[in-house]
Amino acid sequence: MRVNMSEKFVYFFGNGKADGSAEMKNLLGGKGANLAEMTNLGIPVPAGFTISTGVCTYFTQHGRTYPPGLETEVRKALSKVERAMEAGFGDPENPVLMSVRSGARVSMPGMMDTVLNLGLNDITVQGLIKQTGDKRFAYDCYRRFVQMYGDVVLGLKPRGKDEIDPFEAILDEKKKKRGISSDMGLTAEDLKELVSDFKGCITARTGKEFPQNPYEQLWGAIGAVFGSWDNPRAMAYRELNNIPPDWGTAVNVQAMVYGNMGENSGTGVAFTRDPAIGENVFYGEYLMNAQGEDVVAGIRTPQPINKKQKGESDLMSLEEEMPEIYQQLEEIQKKLDHHYRDMQDVEFTIQRGKLWMLQTRVGKRTGFAAFRMAVDMVDEGLISEEEALMRVEPIQLNQLLRPVFDPDEKGEALAQGRLLARGLNAGPGAATGRVVFNAEDAVEWVRRGERVILVRLETSPEDIRGMNAAQGILTARGGMTSHAALVARQMGKVCVAGCGALQINYAKRQMGVKDQIVKEGDFLSIDGTTGEVLLGEIKTSPSEVLQVLFEDTLKPEDSLVYRQYERLMSWADRYRRLKIRTNADQPDQAAQAVAFGAEGIGLCRTEHMFFGGDRINSVRKMILAEDAEGRRRALAKLLPMQRHDFIGIFRAMEGKPVTIRTLDPPLHEFLPHEEGEIAQLARSMGVDTARLEAKIESLRELNPMLGHRGCRLGIAYPEITEMQARAIFEAAAQVKKEGTKVLPEVMVPLVGHVNELKVQREIVDRVAKQVKKESGIEFEYTVGTMIELPRAALTADQIAREAEFFSYGTNDLTQTTFGLSRDDAGKFLPKYVQEKILPADPFQTIDQEGVGLLMKIGVEKGRRGRPGLKIGICGEHGGEPASVEFCHRIGLDYASCSPFRVPIARLAAAQAALKDKE
Amino acid sequence: MRVNMSEKFVYFFGNGKADGSAEMKNLLGGKGANLAEMTNLGIPVPAGFTISTGVCTYFTQHGRTYPPGLETEVRKALSKVERAMEAGFGDPENPVLMSVRSGARVSMPGMMDTVLNLGLNDITVQGLIKQTGDKRFAYDCYRRFVQMYGDVVLGLKPRGKDEIDPFEAILDEKKKKRGISSDMGLTAEDLKELVSDFKGCITARTGKEFPQNPYEQLWGAIGAVFGSWDNPRAMAYRELNNIPPDWGTAVNVQAMVYGNMGENSGTGVAFTRDPAIGENVFYGEYLMNAQGEDVVAGIRTPQPINKKQKGESDLMSLEEEMPEIYQQLEEIQKKLDHHYRDMQDVEFTIQRGKLWMLQTRVGKRTGFAAFRMAVDMVDEGLISEEEALMRVEPIQLNQLLRPVFDPDEKGEALAQGRLLARGLNAGPGAATGRVVFNAEDAVEWVRRGERVILVRLETSPEDIRGMNAAQGILTARGGMTSHAALVARQMGKVCVAGCGALQINYAKRQMGVKDQIVKEGDFLSIDGTTGEVLLGEIKTSPSEVLQVLFEDTLKPEDSLVYRQYERLMSWADRYRRLKIRTNADQPDQAAQAVAFGAEGIGLCRTEHMFFGGDRINSVRKMILAEDAEGRRRALAKLLPMQRHDFIGIFRAMEGKPVTIRTLDPPLHEFLPHEEGEIAQLARSMGVDTARLEAKIESLRELNPMLGHRGCRLGIAYPEITEMQARAIFEAAAQVKKEGTKVLPEVMVPLVGHVNELKVQREIVDRVAKQVKKESGIEFEYTVGTMIELPRAALTADQIAREAEFFSYGTNDLTQTTFGLSRDDAGKFLPKYVQEKILPADPFQTIDQEGVGLLMKIGVEKGRRGRPGLKIGICGEHGGEPASVEFCHRIGLDYASCSPFRVPIARLAAAQAALKDKE
Repeated sequence: MRVNMSEKFVYFFGNGKADGSAEMKNLLGGKGANLAEMTNLGIPVPAGFTISTGVCTYFTQHGRTYPPGLETEVRKALSKVERAMEAGFGDPENPVLMSVRSGARVSMPGMMDTVLNLGLNDITVQGLIKQTGDKRFAYDCYRRFVQMYGDVVLGLKPRGKDEIDPFEAILDEKKKKRGISSDMGLTAEDLKELVSDFKGCITARTGKEFPQNPYEQLWGAIGAVFGSWDNPRAMAYRELNNIPPDWGTAVNVQAMVYGNMGENSGTGVAFTRDPAIGENVFYGEYLMNAQGEDVVAGIRTPQPINKKQKGESDLMSLEEEMPEIYQQLEEIQKKLDHHYRDMQDVEFTIQRGKLWMLQTRVGKRTGFAAFRMAVDMVDEGLISEEEALMRVEPIQLNQLLRPVFDPDEKGEALAQGRLLARGLNAGPGAATGRVVFNAEDAVEWVRRGERVILVRLETSPEDIRGMNAAQGILTARGGMTSHAALVARQMGKVCVAGCGALQINYAKRQMGVKDQIVKEGDFLSIDGTTGEVLLGEIKTSPSEVLQVLFEDTLKPEDSLVYRQYERLMSWADRYRRLKIRTNADQPDQAAQAVAFGAEGIGLCRTEHMFFGGDRINSVRKMILAEDAEGRRRALAKLLPMQRHDFIGIFRAMEGKPVTIRTLDPPLHEFLPHEEGEIAQLARSMGVDTARLEAKIESLRELNPMLGHRGCRLGIAYPEITEMQARAIFEAAAQVKKEGTKVLPEVMVPLVGHVNELKVQREIVDRVAKQVKKESGIEFEYTVGTMIELPRAALTADQIAREAEFFSYGTNDLTQTTFGLSRDDAGKFLPKYVQEKILPADPFQTIDQEGVGLLMKIGVEKGRRGRPGLKIGICGEHGGEPASVEFCHRIGLDYASCSPFRVPIARLAAAQAALKDKE
Repeated sequence: MRVNMSEKFVYFFGNGKADGSAEMKNLLGGKGANLAEMTNLGIPVPAGFTISTGVCTYFTQHGRTYPPGLETEVRKALSKVERAMEAGFGDPENPVLMSVRSGARVSMPGMMDTVLNLGLNDITVQGLIKQTGDKRFAYDCYRRFVQMYGDVVLGLKPRGKDEIDPFEAILDEKKKKRGISSDMGLTAEDLKELVSDFKGCITARTGKEFPQNPYEQLWGAIGAVFGSWDNPRAMAYRELNNIPPDWGTAVNVQAMVYGNMGENSGTGVAFTRDPAIGENVFYGEYLMNAQGEDVVAGIRTPQPINKKQKGESDLMSLEEEMPEIYQQLEEIQKKLDHHYRDMQDVEFTIQRGKLWMLQTRVGKRTGFAAFRMAVDMVDEGLISEEEALMRVEPIQLNQLLRPVFDPDEKGEALAQGRLLARGLNAGPGAATGRVVFNAEDAVEWVRRGERVILVRLETSPEDIRGMNAAQGILTARGGMTSHAALVARQMGKVCVAGCGALQINYAKRQMGVKDQIVKEGDFLSIDGTTGEVLLGEIKTSPSEVLQVLFEDTLKPEDSLVYRQYERLMSWADRYRRLKIRTNADQPDQAAQAVAFGAEGIGLCRTEHMFFGGDRINSVRKMILAEDAEGRRRALAKLLPMQRHDFIGIFRAMEGKPVTIRTLDPPLHEFLPHEEGEIAQLARSMGVDTARLEAKIESLRELNPMLGHRGCRLGIAYPEITEMQARAIFEAAAQVKKEGTKVLPEVMVPLVGHVNELKVQREIVDRVAKQVKKESGIEFEYTVGTMIELPRAALTADQIAREAEFFSYGTNDLTQTTFGLSRDDAGKFLPKYVQEKILPADPFQTIDQEGVGLLMKIGVEKGRRGRPGLKIGICGEHGGEPASVEFCHRIGLDYASCSPFRVPIARLAAAQAALKDKE
């Protein structure tokens, strides 16, 4: 963002009036914008101001300096804060203390730095004592501030795994000397000494004095927070979440309020609806006499916010402990939920019996919750169907389809007493895997093919890569709003949090509950829907949605999840333009895809059929035949088998279009490579083993991906295409005769020049004519081609003259456009993505600039060659939301993907259409 | 061609006036257009008419029928012929006989059918007797006509190799019965009987009578000639010569004149200049009392046309035999040479002392001749330099550069008495190889890697594939205008023709001269410049041009060939816009290329340098190092060697730009694969063999072409790029210090995304800065990239922001655009080209529609990203004339090719510029 000289950098909020609003997220970050919005809504918010994200960009690009004018604006805003809070910054009598926090456009929990209690020094600490009458509290604030400032601003935070926080070391030393184990045992004098020791440590380490000037403190903190936008953790997080580095963060400077000012103080976080399952109930956690960081860090297990949530627990709820405050909070949360028309994640503090709201933002949620909230809010009249559709990330659908534990196996495990413990159901789903105790191990074990459960006391931002790699996450501490729970929810990971019964010993790499010990590498199963932790492996079974769709085990009326899935998907179907098909080779896959909403088969790979039973022998004989005659004999044996497959598929699809691709892979893939297998095949073919070996060798290719495959096979051996066309059309005739509609679409792969399609099409048309004549049955069919080579896209106008449809094979198109073999890219592609040489893995999401440009050219030229040409995609990208959106945008007619991705594609297509409308 | 109803189909010529002209080749074919032109020039041409090529297309597309109105036009034209020739078609007293010949836009010698003596029947033969007073002649004409008509029109021509011409069988039978060996021995009665026998044979074979009606004969012949446009021979020829099938042939119907009407008759073919070496002398051959086909078929060795050509021979020349006719012919040929301003190939017949011209057309010539004629005609004021440049096919330059026999070795061979025989120097150059006796064997032997000399009594159109495959062609019969000589000239093949001393025995697969026997497979050497045939292999040495350029053996003043080469090439340089560079990795190659006119190095492959001496060991150690440190150590050893190479190249290029590509091939290519070699390397590296094997195995790729190569190496191992950049710049500094200009251009290969270039460029720029600082020497350099992936072309605007130049790597670009591995395409690409699925092999000439479109996109976007961006090509296409023309057309700045192709590229570039001007 360029800094405009007439631009405003600082936005004040407080006393019921704010310069900003919720719409200004790009400028003020989410946190700042929402603080402004809450202030304007009349909600009690401690006064403060936001320094805009533009300043962050300026700061980064100008060697950590600030735009001219900023300092004046900050001073002015600070005066307003002083007036609003009726206290002075640095005032020896009545000091206002400040928090300095990051706040980007989207939430990046825990990734950047924060400084609290800013403004304290040897003088103002006396003012704080005067104001609160609590010397211990004041020195606790001061030592926390010095520690945090030392860590964050002065760089004493430990960077490596083996380094110890120097302040923690001093603290531990002090506690040891005093013979106590908890911080709570330290006296005001102890804390005062600690402040002094901490300051000494800072001077010793940095050669500089801890700054006593509150303004110097403030600018140090602001610089540290802006600088933390580019720390390695934040960069890793941005990468994982596709956040552009030039967005920058805002900095929020806000008056501190304290939840740790004694027994009528407290702090909490809450969601306006249940973030795990989505139910419309106020849901939160708090701790009395604590600071906010205590709740989020998951060190103390927090209390439930209300009686409903409390359930059987013996913890006191806020509703019981401070009924009036709860009432006020309950009203505020409802106001926020309705005002924002979305579930809010709020932070509050009660300072000496007064409620302050510190933050509101759209809350992270599981896929389950996203579905439920979206549908509920439509029913509540809060949002429209269109909005509901935009509220669910298509990829979150995975969670609804994700397995649950097999009820029988789990029942048995419970009967065997394998229930180890119970925690919070922080991330729904079922996960089973080997136990590891740190993130590095998780990544490493997964890399070598293991499935792991990451077990931690609590997780921290450093753990995200490990969390991402693990099947599930289990923590001993922390609540529903702990780091583990938040991140797991966002990643859609299975998570059980706050399982307090666990005794974890990192050093021994084991954990236990009473005398039951689980060692690193042991199997463990966690149920993120119920919070159960079970010993050993447990088989999983299909999710509720799948059980309703495919099993007899669940009826729609018994599954709210299914019913809400169904409703949202029906809305998706109403708004999307793109048709969704599936890639399926077997009748059962086809049927499954139809249940998921597939409107046809976009890719039926005939070669998969070649491996079944003893077919492979006929295939091999065909390949190794010396001449066309020998090939024809072998093909004659394959014909009835392929016909049988197609009959099954046509029946399952009941007249929906079925795109069948003729033989594609290099023939070498079908041949045996083991000596024994070759000898056996030679015997069965009645040929010499050495001769067979030589023949197999002669089919080997240097670059099989660019070799004798696709239509090149059908051109070299027209009898193969002939047999396949015959199997397709005889099946079509048969099924039509049975009274079922059929619509085969014959698709020729790897066409680079129109003539290739032309000669293959001639064969297909000829066979169709023959079969119609032989069977006496008329059937419709079309002939088209894959567009999977750059040349095909570039000459699409010519190719379209011979093709009734195109289907983008974006896997191969990506390989050829990049000159990149997917099989070999493992050596360097990860580095490319990690170091941002490529913005994303082009095999996961369509490279819109390169591959996408070819696709656009292909669409435009193709439709020029044949107006109204039907065009689809059947590469793996067909089920990836960003790619689906791209396909919608360039005007494709359909996307085809694997059955389990069909719902994702349907939703992504609807979102694409809705974005288009905007 | 669509037939327009108002279009004229038939074009008359005769009596000094013609409807057509030389400009109407597309409509009338070359032959017809030139007959018209000659007629208009007042040259004696037997009257006739031409049926246009449009009728051929109509005929092909309308099931062998004719456009309405054609018949009327033919009848009218026939009447004019009758008037001009003062004889009647089918007139019993004074019949005019007709020839019916094909005539396409370009000459396709012997590929299509011809019918002569048409109009004869049992009645008109009597008229012919009356007119000529020669019964034997008349019946000879008649039996020839019936035989030809039976062959061509009625389909009795033998099709297979084993079939015998039924007419020849009857003729042989007759001769046997009469106890004679030559046709000449047959009496008028014999011939009359033969006519009757032939007719009987026709009826027996076809069930139809030989047609007596001259009009029926005429239409039969016209249909056969049109039909022969699509016979297999003609189609094969068109394919070989890139002649579009829709051009069609015209049909020329022309009054017959006879060279076989006794001793004051004769026939001949001649060239207005020597077609082998290009000298401006009238050059031709004739036979007295013969038909034209006798000369061309090569069965009788013809007589020289004049005394100059006669030389030592004891054959009578036309100049001596018929001085007045020769004088008239000499005037006509000069008129034609000047009128057409190009060497003409003419056919003439002397009928009873009167000269008739039957054909003129631009004559085929060798590359030597093409050069000489072009330069001579400029000197004679006939053509401009521009025209001269268009007169030489760039590919003909190969002939001027083609080796000649090593003088010492040849001298020795002669001294050893290895001169077997002497024939006509029909195709200049030197060829050595194993003897084969038929075209199929030639193709087959060459396929398995042999070099062959094809030896035939005479060649025929069926032999062209074999002639193409052979190193050289040797025939026993036929003159300079025989089929062998003509085709060899056109193909640029070495050819010795009419070597009458040879006794060839096809059945025994051997040949001999007296008692010297040469068997199939024996080595033979033929000198197409002198006509010598020598036993055994003889080493070849560089051509005259090369001897002048690179050896001390020849001075420019002693080589006319060199001087003319030099003049034409200097004109080419004056007219071309495209710069020509070379691909060279060694100083000597570079120097050679400069001598050939290269203006810089367009591609210096650094990896070739990696194989020299013991460098490969350092390379291998670098590849197999466990970490960057190990790689750096190995690279440090390579640095001085690479620097040394670059110093040599920079010195040789003296300030001309040198584009150096950083490491490109997959590392696996450098590794040993033999067990012994691996073990040795393991020892020298001090590592375990098994471990080394595993490491080598781990580098193996499924599709190395799409794998870890190009800039992906330099990104994974930045220290490689660093070392190479350092070698380049240290060499540059060194050479500059010596006082020689240097201009290195560092080229990063296989870039697909701008960021790849960016990170590599950062390394190069950093090293350049370091070297400048270290050496204290300032030098210029640029950094650019290969465009060899579709994605690079598609995103060229972005890439251009980081690149100071582009160079198209059309080899890889073709592979990726087509999804076609050059290494593996051998299995199907030949069939693709043969069956016209692809118009040409895209690795030989740029696929302009697909790959070319990407290139155009790349040029346009590249220059949008960086105005004035320098763009070249360094793929193998850079020396192929059609590709060079394409590069000129899309606005490239230079083409780079192997040293020997530099002159070809210079000429092609000039022609492209001249075509552009038009």
